[in-house]
Amino acid sequence: MAAECDSGNCDAWAARDPSGILSPYKFNRRSVQSEDVSLKITHCGICYADVAWTRNMLNNSMYPLVPGHEIVGVVTEVGADVKGFKVGDHVGVGTYVNSCRDCENCNSSLENHCSKFVFTFNGVDTDGTVTKGGYSSHIVVHERYCFKIPDGYPLAKAAPLLCAGITVYTPMMRHNMNQAGKSLGVIGLGGLGHMAVKFGKAFGLKVTVFSTSESKREEAINLLGADNFVISSDENQMESQKSSLHFIIDTSSGDHPFDPYLSLLKVGGVMVLLSFSSEIKVHPANLNLAARSISGSVTGGTKSTQEMLNFCAANKIYPDIEMIKINYVNEALQRLVDRDVRFRFVIDIVNSF
Amino acid sequence: MAAECDSGNCDAWAARDPSGILSPYKFNRRSVQSEDVSLKITHCGICYADVAWTRNMLNNSMYPLVPGHEIVGVVTEVGADVKGFKVGDHVGVGTYVNSCRDCENCNSSLENHCSKFVFTFNGVDTDGTVTKGGYSSHIVVHERYCFKIPDGYPLAKAAPLLCAGITVYTPMMRHNMNQAGKSLGVIGLGGLGHMAVKFGKAFGLKVTVFSTSESKREEAINLLGADNFVISSDENQMESQKSSLHFIIDTSSGDHPFDPYLSLLKVGGVMVLLSFSSEIKVHPANLNLAARSISGSVTGGTKSTQEMLNFCAANKIYPDIEMIKINYVNEALQRLVDRDVRFRFVIDIVNSF
Repeated sequence: MAAECDSGNCDAWAARDPSGILSPYKFNRRSVQSEDVSLKITHCGICYADVAWTRNMLNNSMYPLVPGHEIVGVVTEVGADVKGFKVGDHVGVGTYVNSCRDCENCNSSLENHCSKFVFTFNGVDTDGTVTKGGYSSHIVVHERYCFKIPDGYPLAKAAPLLCAGITVYTPMMRHNMNQAGKSLGVIGLGGLGHMAVKFGKAFGLKVTVFSTSESKREEAINLLGADNFVISSDENQMESQKSSLHFIIDTSSGDHPFDPYLSLLKVGGVMVLLSFSSEIKVHPANLNLAARSISGSVTGGTKSTQEMLNFCAANKIYPDIEMIKINYVNEALQRLVDRDVRFRFVIDIVNSF
Repeated sequence: MAAECDSGNCDAWAARDPSGILSPYKFNRRSVQSEDVSLKITHCGICYADVAWTRNMLNNSMYPLVPGHEIVGVVTEVGADVKGFKVGDHVGVGTYVNSCRDCENCNSSLENHCSKFVFTFNGVDTDGTVTKGGYSSHIVVHERYCFKIPDGYPLAKAAPLLCAGITVYTPMMRHNMNQAGKSLGVIGLGGLGHMAVKFGKAFGLKVTVFSTSESKREEAINLLGADNFVISSDENQMESQKSSLHFIIDTSSGDHPFDPYLSLLKVGGVMVLLSFSSEIKVHPANLNLAARSISGSVTGGTKSTQEMLNFCAANKIYPDIEMIKINYVNEALQRLVDRDVRFRFVIDIVNSF
């Protein structure tokens, strides 16, 4: 297939095998169809998903693999039937680029839950091609899966909103966390966690950050504006927070016990899990006796993605990023694995190719 | 202590040891204090809790133990400061008879979650006495924990509402299940399950009953009005229900897997657990990928208990009961263990002593 040759109309970096090492690559993007938007990509955020798939952690990677699903760019061409976008618009693309557009979930603007949802990279699109992500010079996407970046919002800072931002915002809205005066616990202070603190403060919540590392205290309180910082391995500190929180957002990756956090929730409190541990195990009394809930979530639908972008612009919520060029991407991915980033890498695509 | 002698102003049946066998017993109830209501008990429902504590299953039973926390009666005396009740009123008492009345939960009418909450039986009240339940001729309770049985509502049928009814109603309201046209799954068809079906139909939900026993089909559909009946051990039947339900109420006791039921929920669906299994273990993807929740619940607060009673009267919701005399209670408790009841035993107290 032409798209799989190392030549074509699109410059990119791709992983070639499970080492995950990325190197320059060329391939063909499709030409713009009637409802498509073509973007010159300016920036792409680096998500942990990029590590997982370049390194074949889920055993389903298709190489060459071009990662990247926090994509921002400028419209260079639109199809004849495109209604929402015009050349020159600032546009974002997130974790998916297609869905069936005809199921209960698509019809409820929950395209992220459509069973035919197509990932932005390493997905198989309806035309049979393997999707390729935002570590590339341009992308062609059906307009339904494109989002308007509000006027004046810095493009580089918009990139992490397309995955980290919406992943946090969606469950916060589903569980009505936008209630000023209530209390939110945020577990983990990476790309997702730092956005949870920012949204929490914008909603008027009292935010407590839970971390295993004392080194995060200053960032949590002074940089991000959290109200409280707790070392989660300190039983006394944890005990002092018992039944104090209305909501918890758990962004920590890897296996960890849930009961100690559940017991921090007030009656009726909700703990949202955003990571994929190997299993969830809790004691029933910890749910029943205080009518608590555990909930999962994954990215968000098109309507709430646009709503989230508008909310960030209106409330001046900006991710904290470290900007890099594409030729630093292998180091950046390793630093992400090593949790050495404050708080999201963004690739300066437009100055990289 | 006078209250512990086998003589006094109150006739009852008590278990004397972990055999759980009940026999006639006398003890003293306190005299009516300024905010107390005294009830001549007419009926008392039999809850599985009565089995658990008479047989010391939780290793904290204090004998002689008078069970019963689905209590209905007629007011015979009120204290000088009682505002809500008068002699002759029909009144119910549920699973608790005291709380601190001054904490965040009490102040939110969530007395059932007060840390100083006192169980209606086998609890230690603020005066140090061990509480004794409704398998007795009268009871004296602070008016805050008494509920008005609506005019015309049959007293015998009101009894199961005070535990089974409110236990089901509370999470249904918390999770906004009163949305006509949505779909509810009910796991288990005992005292709680049959109330869940009734509330579900009153809310206009499409109700599917899940049971391991084909023998429950006719009861579910024809007697209770469920729309659908599924044998939960039949993988094909379960598969056909995938992603079909907005809500599930799990009333089944004993350990069972949760993942097969979780996968029946639509995106954003909620599964409420009302039983205490030894642990809750689920696969994270089953929560995350469809933004599902698992939630616990236990009884309900005073405000929602009264609301539930009024709702049952307004909507002509009546538990299905088998009425017995107190001298049949040992057989009834065993039949409850054997799941041989359709759907709640109620003791005809007024004709038993």
